[in-house]
Amino acid sequence: MKALEEKIKREGCLMPGDILNVGSFLNQQLDCAFLFEMGKEIGRIFGKDGVNKVLTIEASGIAVAVAAGYALGVPAVFAKKHRSGNVSGGVYKASIHSYTHGNDYEAVVPKDFLCGDDRVLIVDDFLANGAALRGLIDIVGQSGAYLVGAATAIEKGFQGGGDALRALGIRVDSLAIIDRFEDGGVVFRKSEM
Amino acid sequence: MKALEEKIKREGCLMPGDILNVGSFLNQQLDCAFLFEMGKEIGRIFGKDGVNKVLTIEASGIAVAVAAGYALGVPAVFAKKHRSGNVSGGVYKASIHSYTHGNDYEAVVPKDFLCGDDRVLIVDDFLANGAALRGLIDIVGQSGAYLVGAATAIEKGFQGGGDALRALGIRVDSLAIIDRFEDGGVVFRKSEM
Repeated sequence: MKALEEKIKREGCLMPGDILNVGSFLNQQLDCAFLFEMGKEIGRIFGKDGVNKVLTIEASGIAVAVAAGYALGVPAVFAKKHRSGNVSGGVYKASIHSYTHGNDYEAVVPKDFLCGDDRVLIVDDFLANGAALRGLIDIVGQSGAYLVGAATAIEKGFQGGGDALRALGIRVDSLAIIDRFEDGGVVFRKSEM
Repeated sequence: MKALEEKIKREGCLMPGDILNVGSFLNQQLDCAFLFEMGKEIGRIFGKDGVNKVLTIEASGIAVAVAAGYALGVPAVFAKKHRSGNVSGGVYKASIHSYTHGNDYEAVVPKDFLCGDDRVLIVDDFLANGAALRGLIDIVGQSGAYLVGAATAIEKGFQGGGDALRALGIRVDSLAIIDRFEDGGVVFRKSEM
């Protein structure tokens, strides 16, 4: 999505340790109008796949998921994060390692909100090593729902999480894929779209 | 907002201990189309007040805030929750007591995202005792921004948090105000709008 690549170049901030800070429009401060452009693009990509539910994880995934759900005309469900070992009964759950915080947490979705008849699109703001996405895929598997694919706003391609999932046959579409950082700037992977 | 009152009656679930569960459309599962109707209504109420920023708190406030920000044509900022004593430097923060979890946490907003020139509308999904709202009002005060008011989706009027803030002269508009629970059902406060 050209507009997202340009926005990352214009408003993103490259921090020490190759951390891309997009807090000014995608995380913590949310550019609401632009979110809806991203949602529309996800709707365009997955609009013919019979998606009936969007699944994400709190907190920063919620905004993109709501925009995508709006565009697709379906509800969005978000997994809550709990400290591991703190959850029981009536839920699907998956243990996820947080590379940011160096600990594990459990992603939890009540069974009421996902079932075998659902066709699920997973949506998130960031895809790096893919740990969160794998946790959500695990939850979709537990529910018996059909996994249509995953849509993320920004993928850090060089961390390999997206390509590892694609190698499993899972459809992963990211609106912008960062190939590498170079000279303090961002180089995007050539889009095939 | 009549449509919200009807949705609460139709889809809300009254649990033991006078807890209203609206997880099927406002929390954990999000009715994206309806969220945008609520956002539009907030836009209608506050559309002439020069709001240039919406402020909320993660996680379940984000969805309503994004919808309101979209309707008002302004960005939404969300405060992150941290365990108390775990935050320093370059941020506004306020200590908030969670009645749900029986502990305190800190709501944190980087100084980059709020300043003295801003005209802020606080948005949240629920208003009960008003602890979260008071924390966010504290943060607006620290930033020097002008507080236009607060818009919440569902207010539990009988818990008094909203009226206590109104008594301070703060403009608080809730799309649905629950006056009491009666015979397993919900009775709404008569709207003056």
